[in-house]
Amino acid sequence: MELWYTEEHTDEVRFSIKVERQLFSGQSEFQTIDFFESKEFGRFFTLDGLMMVNEKDEFIYHDMITHVALATNPNIKKVLVIGAGDGGTVRELTRYKHIEQIDMVEIDEMVVRLCQEHLPITASKLEDERVNLYFEDGVKFVEGKEGEYDLIIVDSTDPIGPGEGLFTVDFYNNCYKALSEEGILVNQHESPYYENYAREMKRSHQKIKKIFPISRVYQAHIPTYPSGHWLFGFASKKYDPIKDVQVDQWNNFGITTRYYNTDLHVGCFFLPNYVKEMLESDDE
Amino acid sequence: MELWYTEEHTDEVRFSIKVERQLFSGQSEFQTIDFFESKEFGRFFTLDGLMMVNEKDEFIYHDMITHVALATNPNIKKVLVIGAGDGGTVRELTRYKHIEQIDMVEIDEMVVRLCQEHLPITASKLEDERVNLYFEDGVKFVEGKEGEYDLIIVDSTDPIGPGEGLFTVDFYNNCYKALSEEGILVNQHESPYYENYAREMKRSHQKIKKIFPISRVYQAHIPTYPSGHWLFGFASKKYDPIKDVQVDQWNNFGITTRYYNTDLHVGCFFLPNYVKEMLESDDE
Repeated sequence: MELWYTEEHTDEVRFSIKVERQLFSGQSEFQTIDFFESKEFGRFFTLDGLMMVNEKDEFIYHDMITHVALATNPNIKKVLVIGAGDGGTVRELTRYKHIEQIDMVEIDEMVVRLCQEHLPITASKLEDERVNLYFEDGVKFVEGKEGEYDLIIVDSTDPIGPGEGLFTVDFYNNCYKALSEEGILVNQHESPYYENYAREMKRSHQKIKKIFPISRVYQAHIPTYPSGHWLFGFASKKYDPIKDVQVDQWNNFGITTRYYNTDLHVGCFFLPNYVKEMLESDDE
Repeated sequence: MELWYTEEHTDEVRFSIKVERQLFSGQSEFQTIDFFESKEFGRFFTLDGLMMVNEKDEFIYHDMITHVALATNPNIKKVLVIGAGDGGTVRELTRYKHIEQIDMVEIDEMVVRLCQEHLPITASKLEDERVNLYFEDGVKFVEGKEGEYDLIIVDSTDPIGPGEGLFTVDFYNNCYKALSEEGILVNQHESPYYENYAREMKRSHQKIKKIFPISRVYQAHIPTYPSGHWLFGFASKKYDPIKDVQVDQWNNFGITTRYYNTDLHVGCFFLPNYVKEMLESDDE
Protein backbone atom coordinates (compact mmCIF):
# COMPACT_ATOMS: atom_id res chain seq x y z
CA MET A 1 0.00 0.00 0.00
CA GLU A 2 1.10 3.56 -0.66
CA LEU A 3 -0.40 6.59 1.03
CA TRP A 4 0.14 10.02 -0.52
CA TYR A 5 -0.74 13.48 0.78
CA THR A 6 -1.42 15.92 -2.07
CA GLU A 7 -1.62 19.69 -1.84
CA GLU A 8 -2.99 21.83 -4.64
CA HIS A 9 -0.61 24.74 -5.11
CA THR A 10 -2.90 25.98 -7.86
CA ASP A 11 -5.75 24.28 -9.72
CA GLU A 12 -3.11 23.03 -12.14
CA VAL A 13 -0.16 22.24 -9.86
CA ARG A 14 0.06 19.56 -7.19
CA PHE A 15 2.71 18.68 -4.64
CA SER A 16 2.58 15.19 -3.14
CA ILE A 17 4.33 13.57 -0.23
CA LYS A 18 4.46 9.88 0.50
CA VAL A 19 3.31 9.39 4.06
CA GLU A 20 3.89 6.51 6.41
CA ARG A 21 0.74 7.15 8.36
CA GLN A 22 -1.80 9.74 9.40
CA LEU A 23 -1.32 10.57 13.08
CA PHE A 24 -4.47 12.64 13.52
CA SER A 25 -7.38 14.00 11.55
CA GLY A 26 -10.03 16.23 13.02
CA GLN A 27 -12.00 19.41 12.90
CA SER A 28 -11.57 22.29 15.33
CA GLU A 29 -13.99 25.17 15.74
CA PHE A 30 -12.02 26.96 13.02
CA GLN A 31 -10.44 24.52 10.58
CA THR A 32 -9.58 20.97 9.56
CA ILE A 33 -6.38 19.71 11.17
CA ASP A 34 -4.28 16.74 10.00
CA PHE A 35 -0.97 15.37 11.25
CA PHE A 36 1.17 12.97 9.21
CA GLU A 37 4.41 11.06 9.51
CA SER A 38 6.64 10.90 6.41
CA LYS A 39 10.17 9.76 5.63
CA GLU A 40 11.22 12.81 3.62
CA PHE A 41 9.84 15.54 5.87
CA GLY A 42 9.39 13.78 9.20
CA ARG A 43 6.19 14.79 10.94
CA PHE A 44 4.09 17.51 9.42
CA PHE A 45 0.68 19.05 9.87
CA THR A 46 -1.83 20.72 7.60
CA LEU A 47 -4.70 23.15 8.14
CA ASP A 48 -7.56 22.89 5.66
CA GLY A 49 -5.29 20.74 3.48
CA LEU A 50 -2.37 23.18 3.31
CA MET A 51 1.12 22.35 4.65
CA MET A 52 1.91 24.44 7.72
CA VAL A 53 5.01 22.97 9.33
CA ASN A 54 7.23 19.94 8.85
CA GLU A 55 10.26 18.71 10.73
CA LYS A 56 12.60 18.99 7.72
CA ASP A 57 12.28 22.66 6.84
CA GLU A 58 10.48 24.37 9.72
CA PHE A 59 13.85 25.82 10.74
CA ILE A 60 13.92 27.98 7.61
CA TYR A 61 10.57 29.64 8.23
CA HIS A 62 11.17 30.12 11.96
CA ASP A 63 14.70 31.47 11.52
CA MET A 64 13.50 34.00 9.00
CA ILE A 65 10.37 35.18 10.80
CA THR A 66 12.31 35.98 14.02
CA HIS A 67 16.04 36.68 13.62
CA VAL A 68 15.81 39.43 10.99
CA ALA A 69 13.94 41.67 13.43
CA LEU A 70 16.15 40.75 16.39
CA ALA A 71 19.33 41.56 14.47
CA THR A 72 17.85 44.88 13.34
CA ASN A 73 16.96 45.84 16.89
CA PRO A 74 18.79 43.59 19.37
CA ASN A 75 17.12 45.41 22.26
CA ILE A 76 13.64 44.05 21.65
CA LYS A 77 12.17 43.09 25.02
CA LYS A 78 8.42 42.68 24.59
CA VAL A 79 7.05 40.63 21.72
CA LEU A 80 3.54 39.84 20.52
CA VAL A 81 3.18 36.75 18.34
CA ILE A 82 -0.11 36.28 16.51
CA GLY A 83 -0.94 32.85 15.15
CA ALA A 84 2.08 30.55 15.26
CA GLY A 85 0.17 27.72 16.92
CA ASP A 86 2.98 25.23 16.28
CA GLY A 87 5.21 27.13 18.70
CA GLY A 88 8.26 27.40 16.40
CA THR A 89 8.33 31.19 16.38
CA VAL A 90 8.15 31.31 20.17
CA ARG A 91 10.88 28.67 20.39
CA GLU A 92 13.25 30.92 18.43
CA LEU A 93 12.32 33.97 20.51
CA THR A 94 13.02 32.17 23.80
CA ARG A 95 16.64 31.72 22.70
CA TYR A 96 17.19 35.43 23.38
CA LYS A 97 17.86 35.70 27.09
CA HIS A 98 17.18 39.43 27.16
CA ILE A 99 13.61 39.14 25.84
CA GLU A 100 11.35 39.68 28.82
CA GLN A 101 7.84 38.96 27.61
CA ILE A 102 6.34 36.94 24.77
CA ASP A 103 2.57 37.14 24.37
CA MET A 104 1.30 34.55 21.92
CA VAL A 105 -2.26 34.88 20.64
CA GLU A 106 -3.54 31.87 18.72
CA ILE A 107 -7.21 31.60 17.86
CA ASP A 108 -7.23 27.80 17.75
CA GLU A 109 -6.18 26.11 21.00
CA MET A 110 -6.58 22.70 19.38
CA VAL A 111 -3.65 23.42 17.03
CA VAL A 112 -1.42 24.22 19.99
CA ARG A 113 -2.42 21.17 21.99
CA LEU A 114 -1.94 18.86 19.01
CA CYS A 115 1.48 20.35 18.25
CA GLN A 116 2.49 19.83 21.87
CA GLU A 117 1.55 16.18 21.44
CA HIS A 118 2.84 15.48 17.91
CA LEU A 119 5.41 18.19 17.11
CA PRO A 120 7.56 18.80 20.19
CA ILE A 121 10.34 20.03 17.86
CA THR A 122 8.42 23.30 17.48
CA ALA A 123 6.14 23.34 20.53
CA SER A 124 8.74 22.57 23.19
CA LYS A 125 9.26 26.12 24.47
CA LEU A 126 5.67 27.19 24.97
CA GLU A 127 6.12 26.58 28.69
CA ASP A 128 8.97 29.07 29.00
CA GLU A 129 8.07 31.33 31.93
CA ARG A 130 8.21 34.47 29.76
CA VAL A 131 5.50 33.12 27.45
CA ASN A 132 1.85 34.05 27.95
CA LEU A 133 -0.59 32.04 25.85
CA TYR A 134 -3.89 33.61 24.83
CA PHE A 135 -6.41 31.56 22.89
CA GLU A 136 -8.18 34.49 21.30
CA ASP A 137 -8.65 36.28 18.01
CA GLY A 138 -5.45 38.23 17.31
CA VAL A 139 -7.46 40.91 15.51
CA LYS A 140 -9.36 41.73 18.69
CA PHE A 141 -6.35 41.27 20.96
CA VAL A 142 -4.42 44.18 19.43
CA GLU A 143 -7.40 46.56 19.45
CA GLY A 144 -6.81 49.41 21.88
CA LYS A 145 -3.23 48.43 22.76
CA GLU A 146 -0.83 51.39 22.76
CA GLY A 147 2.95 51.30 22.56
CA GLU A 148 3.18 47.98 24.38
CA TYR A 149 5.37 45.88 22.10
CA ASP A 150 8.79 46.26 20.47
CA LEU A 151 7.97 43.56 17.95
CA ILE A 152 4.79 42.05 16.56
CA ILE A 153 5.14 38.86 14.51
CA VAL A 154 2.12 37.82 12.46
CA ASP A 155 2.66 34.14 11.78
CA SER A 156 -0.65 33.45 10.15
CA THR A 157 -2.29 31.12 7.69
CA ASP A 158 -3.25 32.45 4.26
CA PRO A 159 -5.83 35.25 4.12
CA ILE A 160 -8.70 32.83 3.59
CA GLY A 161 -10.46 31.34 6.61
CA PRO A 162 -9.37 32.17 10.16
CA GLY A 163 -6.34 34.21 8.98
CA GLU A 164 -8.39 36.68 6.93
CA GLY A 165 -8.64 39.48 9.50
CA LEU A 166 -4.84 39.50 9.86
CA PHE A 167 -4.50 40.98 6.36
CA THR A 168 -6.74 44.04 6.83
CA VAL A 169 -5.97 47.77 7.09
CA ASP A 170 -7.66 47.99 10.50
CA PHE A 171 -5.49 45.22 11.87
CA TYR A 172 -2.27 46.78 10.54
CA ASN A 173 -3.33 50.15 12.00
CA ASN A 174 -3.92 48.55 15.37
CA CYS A 175 -0.51 46.86 15.18
CA TYR A 176 1.07 50.24 14.47
CA LYS A 177 -0.57 51.66 17.61
CA ALA A 178 0.33 48.64 19.71
CA LEU A 179 4.02 49.06 18.85
CA SER A 180 6.54 51.21 20.74
CA GLU A 181 8.40 54.09 19.07
CA GLU A 182 11.04 51.59 17.94
CA GLY A 183 8.49 48.99 16.95
CA ILE A 184 8.80 46.43 14.16
CA LEU A 185 6.04 44.38 12.49
CA VAL A 186 7.03 41.16 10.71
CA ASN A 187 4.42 39.16 8.85
CA GLN A 188 4.35 36.08 6.66
CA HIS A 189 3.78 37.65 3.29
CA GLU A 190 2.75 34.89 0.86
CA SER A 191 4.58 34.21 -2.41
CA PRO A 192 5.11 36.03 -5.72
CA TYR A 193 5.04 33.10 -8.11
CA TYR A 194 1.54 31.68 -8.40
CA GLU A 195 -1.11 34.26 -9.16
CA ASN A 196 -3.44 33.37 -6.26
CA TYR A 197 -0.65 33.93 -3.72
CA ALA A 198 0.86 36.92 -5.51
CA ARG A 199 -2.44 38.79 -5.35
CA GLU A 200 -2.54 38.50 -1.55
CA MET A 201 1.13 39.48 -1.32
CA LYS A 202 0.50 42.70 -3.26
CA ARG A 203 -2.61 43.58 -1.26
CA SER A 204 -0.86 43.08 2.04
CA HIS A 205 2.13 45.19 1.01
CA GLN A 206 -0.02 48.02 -0.34
CA LYS A 207 -1.82 48.28 2.97
CA ILE A 208 1.27 48.13 5.19
CA LYS A 209 3.33 50.62 3.22
CA LYS A 210 0.65 53.29 3.69
CA ILE A 211 0.87 52.92 7.47
CA PHE A 212 4.55 52.36 8.33
CA PRO A 213 7.33 54.78 7.34
CA ILE A 214 9.64 51.84 6.57
CA SER A 215 8.17 48.88 4.72
CA ARG A 216 10.33 46.23 3.07
CA VAL A 217 9.91 42.66 1.92
CA TYR A 218 12.43 39.82 2.22
CA GLN A 219 12.55 36.32 0.82
CA ALA A 220 13.50 32.78 1.76
CA HIS A 221 13.71 29.35 0.17
CA ILE A 222 11.01 27.23 1.83
CA PRO A 223 10.63 24.16 -0.39
CA THR A 224 7.36 22.86 1.05
CA TYR A 225 5.41 26.08 0.54
CA PRO A 226 3.88 26.73 -2.88
CA SER A 227 6.68 27.55 -5.35
CA GLY A 228 9.28 27.41 -2.56
CA HIS A 229 9.70 31.18 -2.91
CA TRP A 230 8.29 32.68 0.26
CA LEU A 231 8.19 36.29 1.42
CA PHE A 232 8.09 38.11 4.74
CA GLY A 233 7.07 41.69 5.36
CA PHE A 234 9.26 43.93 7.53
CA ALA A 235 7.53 47.15 8.60
CA SER A 236 9.04 49.53 11.05
CA LYS A 237 8.62 52.91 12.72
CA LYS A 238 12.33 53.69 12.98
CA TYR A 239 14.80 50.97 12.05
CA ASP A 240 15.82 50.09 8.51
CA PRO A 241 16.63 46.38 8.33
CA ILE A 242 19.70 46.87 6.14
CA LYS A 243 21.19 50.17 7.33
CA ASP A 244 20.59 49.44 10.99
CA VAL A 245 21.47 45.74 11.20
CA GLN A 246 23.65 45.12 14.26
CA VAL A 247 25.93 42.43 12.89
CA ASP A 248 28.40 42.18 15.77
CA GLN A 249 25.79 42.43 18.46
CA TRP A 250 23.67 39.70 16.93
CA ASN A 251 26.63 37.40 16.39
CA ASN A 252 27.68 37.97 19.99
CA PHE A 253 24.39 36.45 21.13
CA GLY A 254 25.93 33.14 20.05
CA ILE A 255 22.66 31.79 18.67
CA THR A 256 23.34 28.90 16.29
CA THR A 257 21.08 28.90 13.25
CA ARG A 258 20.84 26.56 10.28
CA TYR A 259 19.42 29.07 7.79
CA TYR A 260 19.80 32.66 9.00
CA ASN A 261 23.10 34.52 9.16
CA THR A 262 23.91 38.24 9.10
CA ASP A 263 25.16 38.16 5.49
CA LEU A 264 21.95 36.52 4.36
CA HIS A 265 20.08 39.11 6.46
CA VAL A 266 21.15 41.73 3.93
CA GLY A 267 20.98 39.44 0.90
CA CYS A 268 17.39 38.36 1.50
CA PHE A 269 16.10 41.91 0.92
CA PHE A 270 17.49 42.01 -2.63
CA LEU A 271 14.50 40.79 -4.58
CA PRO A 272 14.12 39.73 -8.20
CA ASN A 273 12.87 42.44 -10.55
CA TYR A 274 9.53 40.76 -11.17
CA VAL A 275 8.83 40.71 -7.42
CA LYS A 276 9.90 44.33 -6.96
CA GLU A 277 7.59 45.37 -9.78
CA MET A 278 4.66 43.58 -8.19
CA LEU A 279 5.34 45.25 -4.84
CA GLU A 280 5.68 48.71 -6.39
CA SER A 281 2.58 48.43 -8.55
CA ASP A 282 -0.72 49.82 -7.35
CA ASP A 283 -3.02 47.36 -9.14
CA GLU A 284 -4.80 44.77 -7.16
CA MET B 1 -10.46 13.98 -19.13
CA GLU B 2 -7.51 15.28 -17.14
CA LEU B 3 -3.90 14.76 -18.15
CA TRP B 4 -1.18 15.23 -15.52
CA TYR B 5 2.61 15.24 -15.87
CA THR B 6 4.31 14.03 -12.70
CA GLU B 7 7.97 14.38 -11.79
CA GLU B 8 9.55 12.49 -8.91
CA HIS B 9 11.67 14.97 -6.98
CA THR B 10 12.62 12.11 -4.67
CA ASP B 11 11.13 8.63 -4.22
CA GLU B 12 8.77 10.24 -1.72
CA VAL B 13 7.99 13.61 -3.29
CA ARG B 14 6.11 14.30 -6.50
CA PHE B 15 5.39 17.48 -8.42
CA SER B 16 2.51 17.36 -10.90
CA ILE B 17 1.36 19.71 -13.62
CA LYS B 18 -1.95 19.59 -15.38
CA VAL B 19 -1.25 19.53 -19.10
CA GLU B 20 -3.49 20.46 -21.98
CA ARG B 21 -1.73 18.15 -24.39
CA GLN B 22 1.51 16.42 -25.20
CA LEU B 23 3.15 18.10 -28.18
CA PHE B 24 5.87 15.54 -28.77
CA SER B 25 7.26 12.35 -27.29
CA GLY B 26 10.30 10.57 -28.63
CA GLN B 27 13.68 9.08 -28.05
CA SER B 28 16.93 10.60 -29.28
CA GLU B 29 20.25 8.81 -29.38
CA PHE B 30 20.83 10.05 -25.83
CA GLN B 31 17.56 10.49 -23.96
CA THR B 32 13.78 10.54 -23.89
CA ILE B 33 12.33 13.90 -24.93
CA ASP B 34 8.81 15.15 -24.24
CA PHE B 35 7.14 18.47 -24.94
CA PHE B 36 3.90 19.57 -23.25
CA GLU B 37 1.49 22.46 -23.30
CA SER B 38 0.08 23.60 -19.92
CA LYS B 39 -1.95 26.54 -18.65
CA GLU B 40 0.18 27.32 -15.60
CA PHE B 41 3.64 27.05 -17.17
CA GLY B 42 2.94 27.42 -20.88
CA ARG B 43 5.00 25.07 -22.98
CA PHE B 44 7.62 22.95 -21.30
CA PHE B 45 9.91 20.07 -22.12
CA THR B 46 11.42 17.22 -20.16
CA LEU B 47 14.44 14.98 -20.65
CA ASP B 48 14.17 11.48 -19.19
CA GLY B 49 11.11 12.68 -17.28
CA LEU B 50 12.75 15.70 -15.62
CA MET B 51 11.59 19.29 -16.21
CA MET B 52 14.17 21.25 -18.18
CA VAL B 53 12.55 24.47 -19.31
CA ASN B 54 9.10 26.04 -19.23
CA GLU B 55 7.79 29.32 -20.54
CA LYS B 56 6.79 30.63 -17.09
CA ASP B 57 10.08 30.54 -15.25
CA GLU B 58 12.82 29.94 -17.82
CA PHE B 59 13.74 33.61 -17.43
CA ILE B 60 14.94 32.99 -13.88
CA TYR B 61 17.38 30.24 -14.80
CA HIS B 62 18.66 32.00 -17.91
CA ASP B 63 19.09 35.37 -16.19
CA MET B 64 21.07 33.78 -13.41
CA ILE B 65 23.30 31.53 -15.50
CA THR B 66 24.49 34.45 -17.69
CA HIS B 67 24.26 37.93 -16.17
CA VAL B 68 26.22 37.26 -12.96
CA ALA B 69 29.36 36.52 -14.99
CA LEU B 70 28.78 39.40 -17.42
CA ALA B 71 28.39 41.92 -14.59
CA THR B 72 31.53 40.60 -12.91
CA ASN B 73 33.54 40.98 -16.10
CA PRO B 74 31.69 43.17 -18.60
CA ASN B 75 34.50 42.71 -21.12
CA ILE B 76 33.79 39.06 -21.87
CA LYS B 77 34.07 38.60 -25.63
CA LYS B 78 34.35 34.86 -26.30
CA VAL B 79 31.96 32.45 -24.68
CA LEU B 80 31.64 28.67 -24.72
CA VAL B 81 28.25 27.26 -23.78
CA ILE B 82 28.02 23.54 -23.09
CA GLY B 83 24.61 21.90 -23.11
CA ALA B 84 21.84 24.50 -23.15
CA GLY B 85 20.01 22.85 -26.04
CA ASP B 86 16.90 24.97 -25.50
CA GLY B 87 18.84 28.07 -26.55
CA GLY B 88 17.87 30.26 -23.60
CA THR B 89 21.42 30.82 -22.37
CA VAL B 90 22.54 31.83 -25.86
CA ARG B 91 19.54 34.14 -26.17
CA GLU B 92 20.65 36.06 -23.06
CA LEU B 93 24.27 36.22 -24.26
CA THR B 94 23.26 37.65 -27.65
CA ARG B 95 21.80 40.66 -25.84
CA TYR B 96 25.37 41.87 -25.18
CA LYS B 97 26.43 43.67 -28.34
CA HIS B 98 30.12 43.51 -27.42
CA ILE B 99 30.24 39.71 -27.22
CA GLU B 100 32.01 38.56 -30.37
CA GLN B 101 31.76 34.79 -30.38
CA ILE B 102 29.42 32.24 -28.78
CA ASP B 103 30.31 28.59 -29.32
CA MET B 104 27.49 26.31 -28.22
CA VAL B 105 28.22 22.60 -27.85
CA GLU B 106 25.16 20.43 -27.37
CA ILE B 107 25.45 16.67 -27.60
CA ASP B 108 21.85 16.14 -28.67
CA GLU B 109 20.87 17.91 -31.89
CA MET B 110 17.34 16.61 -31.59
CA VAL B 111 16.78 18.73 -28.44
CA VAL B 112 17.82 21.86 -30.32
CA ARG B 113 15.68 21.15 -33.36
CA LEU B 114 12.64 20.39 -31.22
CA CYS B 115 13.12 23.57 -29.18
CA GLN B 116 13.35 25.58 -32.39
CA GLU B 117 10.00 24.09 -33.36
CA HIS B 118 8.15 24.13 -30.03
CA LEU B 119 9.97 26.65 -27.79
CA PRO B 120 10.87 29.70 -29.87
CA ILE B 121 10.84 31.76 -26.65
CA THR B 122 14.24 30.25 -25.78
CA ALA B 123 15.55 29.05 -29.16
CA SER B 124 14.97 32.22 -31.16
CA LYS B 125 18.53 33.55 -31.10
CA LEU B 126 20.43 30.45 -32.16
CA GLU B 127 20.71 31.93 -35.63
CA ASP B 128 22.54 35.04 -34.44
CA GLU B 129 25.62 35.37 -36.61
CA ARG B 130 28.00 35.23 -33.64
CA VAL B 131 26.70 31.78 -32.64
CA ASN B 132 28.47 28.62 -33.76
CA LEU B 133 26.53 25.43 -33.07
CA TYR B 134 28.45 22.19 -32.50
CA PHE B 135 26.54 18.97 -32.00
CA GLU B 136 29.26 17.17 -30.11
CA ASP B 137 30.21 15.93 -26.67
CA GLY B 138 31.20 19.00 -24.62
CA VAL B 139 33.68 16.90 -22.64
CA LYS B 140 35.67 16.17 -25.78
CA PHE B 141 35.18 19.65 -27.23
CA VAL B 142 37.13 21.37 -24.44
CA GLU B 143 40.02 18.86 -24.47
CA GLY B 144 43.21 20.52 -25.68
CA LYS B 145 41.76 24.05 -25.85
CA GLU B 146 44.05 26.69 -24.32
CA GLY B 147 43.11 30.18 -23.20
CA GLU B 148 40.40 30.54 -25.83
CA TYR B 149 37.38 31.64 -23.83
CA ASP B 150 36.59 34.41 -21.35
CA LEU B 151 33.55 32.52 -20.08
CA ILE B 152 32.43 28.90 -20.10
CA ILE B 153 28.84 28.20 -19.10
CA VAL B 154 27.96 24.59 -18.32
CA ASP B 155 24.20 24.44 -18.71
CA SER B 156 23.82 20.71 -18.28
CA THR B 157 21.33 18.12 -17.16
CA ASP B 158 21.91 16.34 -13.87
CA PRO B 159 25.05 14.22 -13.53
CA ILE B 160 23.24 11.03 -14.52
CA GLY B 161 22.99 10.11 -18.19
CA PRO B 162 24.45 12.32 -20.93
CA GLY B 163 25.42 15.08 -18.46
CA GLU B 164 27.65 12.84 -16.33
CA GLY B 165 31.02 13.75 -17.88
CA LEU B 166 30.32 17.44 -17.24
CA PHE B 167 30.75 16.88 -13.48
CA THR B 168 34.24 15.30 -13.54
CA VAL B 169 37.66 16.58 -12.42
CA ASP B 170 39.10 16.05 -15.92
CA PHE B 171 36.38 18.16 -17.46
CA TYR B 172 36.84 20.99 -14.94
CA ASN B 173 40.61 20.87 -15.49
CA ASN B 174 40.10 21.15 -19.24
CA CYS B 175 37.74 24.09 -18.71
CA TYR B 176 40.42 25.79 -16.62
CA LYS B 177 42.91 25.40 -19.46
CA ALA B 178 40.41 26.49 -22.10
CA LEU B 179 39.81 29.76 -20.24
CA SER B 180 41.79 32.98 -20.64
CA GLU B 181 43.67 34.59 -17.75
CA GLU B 182 40.48 36.42 -16.82
CA GLY B 183 38.30 33.38 -17.35
CA ILE B 184 35.10 32.50 -15.50
CA LEU B 185 33.32 29.14 -15.33
CA VAL B 186 29.62 29.12 -14.43
CA ASN B 187 27.80 25.82 -14.01
CA GLN B 188 24.36 24.70 -12.97
CA HIS B 189 25.07 23.30 -9.55
CA GLU B 190 22.06 21.27 -8.44
CA SER B 191 20.20 21.90 -5.18
CA PRO B 192 20.96 21.60 -1.47
CA TYR B 193 17.59 20.42 -0.20
CA TYR B 194 16.91 16.85 -1.26
CA GLU B 195 19.71 14.45 -0.46
CA ASN B 196 20.10 13.02 -3.98
CA TYR B 197 20.70 16.51 -5.42
CA ALA B 198 22.72 17.76 -2.47
CA ARG B 199 25.24 14.93 -2.88
CA GLU B 200 25.96 15.97 -6.48
CA MET B 201 26.17 19.62 -5.45
CA LYS B 202 28.83 18.84 -2.85
CA ARG B 203 30.85 16.65 -5.20
CA SER B 204 30.83 19.25 -7.93
CA HIS B 205 31.94 22.01 -5.58
CA GLN B 206 34.72 19.93 -4.01
CA LYS B 207 36.20 19.28 -7.43
CA ILE B 208 35.97 22.85 -8.72
CA LYS B 209 37.38 24.51 -5.61
CA LYS B 210 40.58 22.46 -5.92
CA ILE B 211 41.16 23.79 -9.44
CA PHE B 212 40.09 27.45 -9.44
CA PRO B 213 41.53 30.07 -7.08
CA ILE B 214 38.08 31.65 -6.67
CA SER B 215 35.11 29.33 -6.26
CA ARG B 216 31.74 30.53 -5.02
CA VAL B 217 28.16 29.31 -5.18
CA TYR B 218 25.05 31.41 -5.69
CA GLN B 219 21.35 30.67 -5.45
CA ALA B 220 18.05 31.41 -7.15
CA HIS B 221 14.35 30.68 -6.70
CA ILE B 222 13.35 28.38 -9.58
CA PRO B 223 9.98 26.95 -8.57
CA THR B 224 9.81 24.14 -11.15
CA TYR B 225 13.13 22.55 -10.19
CA PRO B 226 13.18 20.13 -7.24
CA SER B 227 12.73 22.12 -4.01
CA GLY B 228 12.77 25.41 -5.94
CA HIS B 229 16.14 26.20 -4.35
CA TRP B 230 18.68 26.01 -7.16
CA LEU B 231 22.38 26.74 -7.13
CA PHE B 232 24.97 27.88 -9.63
CA GLY B 233 28.74 27.56 -9.36
CA PHE B 234 30.95 30.58 -10.09
CA ALA B 235 34.62 29.67 -10.52
CA SER B 236 37.18 32.17 -11.65
CA LYS B 237 40.88 32.71 -12.24
CA LYS B 238 40.90 36.38 -11.29
CA TYR B 239 37.57 38.08 -10.64
CA ASP B 240 35.63 37.86 -7.42
CA PRO B 241 31.90 38.09 -8.18
CA ILE B 242 31.17 40.38 -5.23
CA LYS B 243 34.27 42.57 -4.93
CA ASP B 244 34.64 43.03 -8.65
CA VAL B 245 31.03 43.46 -9.75
CA GLN B 246 30.78 46.38 -12.19
CA VAL B 247 27.42 47.77 -11.17
CA ASP B 248 27.39 50.96 -13.25
CA GLN B 249 28.89 49.35 -16.31
CA TRP B 250 26.36 46.52 -16.29
CA ASN B 251 23.43 48.86 -15.75
CA ASN B 252 24.67 51.03 -18.60
CA PHE B 253 24.22 48.10 -20.97
CA GLY B 254 20.49 48.81 -20.59
CA ILE B 255 19.56 45.12 -20.59
CA THR B 256 16.07 44.66 -19.13
CA THR B 257 15.76 41.60 -16.92
CA ARG B 258 12.84 40.17 -14.98
CA TYR B 259 14.87 38.38 -12.29
CA TYR B 260 18.48 39.56 -12.20
CA ASN B 261 19.58 42.95 -10.92
CA THR B 262 22.90 44.16 -9.52
CA ASP B 263 21.65 44.22 -5.91
CA LEU B 264 20.46 40.65 -6.21
CA HIS B 265 23.85 39.86 -7.81
CA VAL B 266 25.43 40.41 -4.42
CA GLY B 267 22.54 39.03 -2.39
CA CYS B 268 22.45 35.70 -4.20
CA PHE B 269 25.91 34.74 -2.90
CA PHE B 270 24.79 34.97 0.75
CA LEU B 271 23.76 31.40 1.38
CA PRO B 272 21.90 29.80 4.27
CA ASN B 273 24.12 28.24 6.93
CA TYR B 274 23.07 24.69 6.11
CA VAL B 275 24.14 25.17 2.49
CA LYS B 276 27.45 26.79 3.47
CA GLU B 277 28.18 23.88 5.78
CA MET B 278 27.52 21.37 3.02
CA LEU B 279 29.81 23.24 0.64
CA GLU B 280 32.60 23.53 3.20
CA SER B 281 32.43 19.92 4.31
CA ASP B 282 34.75 17.34 2.78
CA ASP B 283 32.45 14.31 3.05
CA GLU B 284 30.95 12.92 -0.05
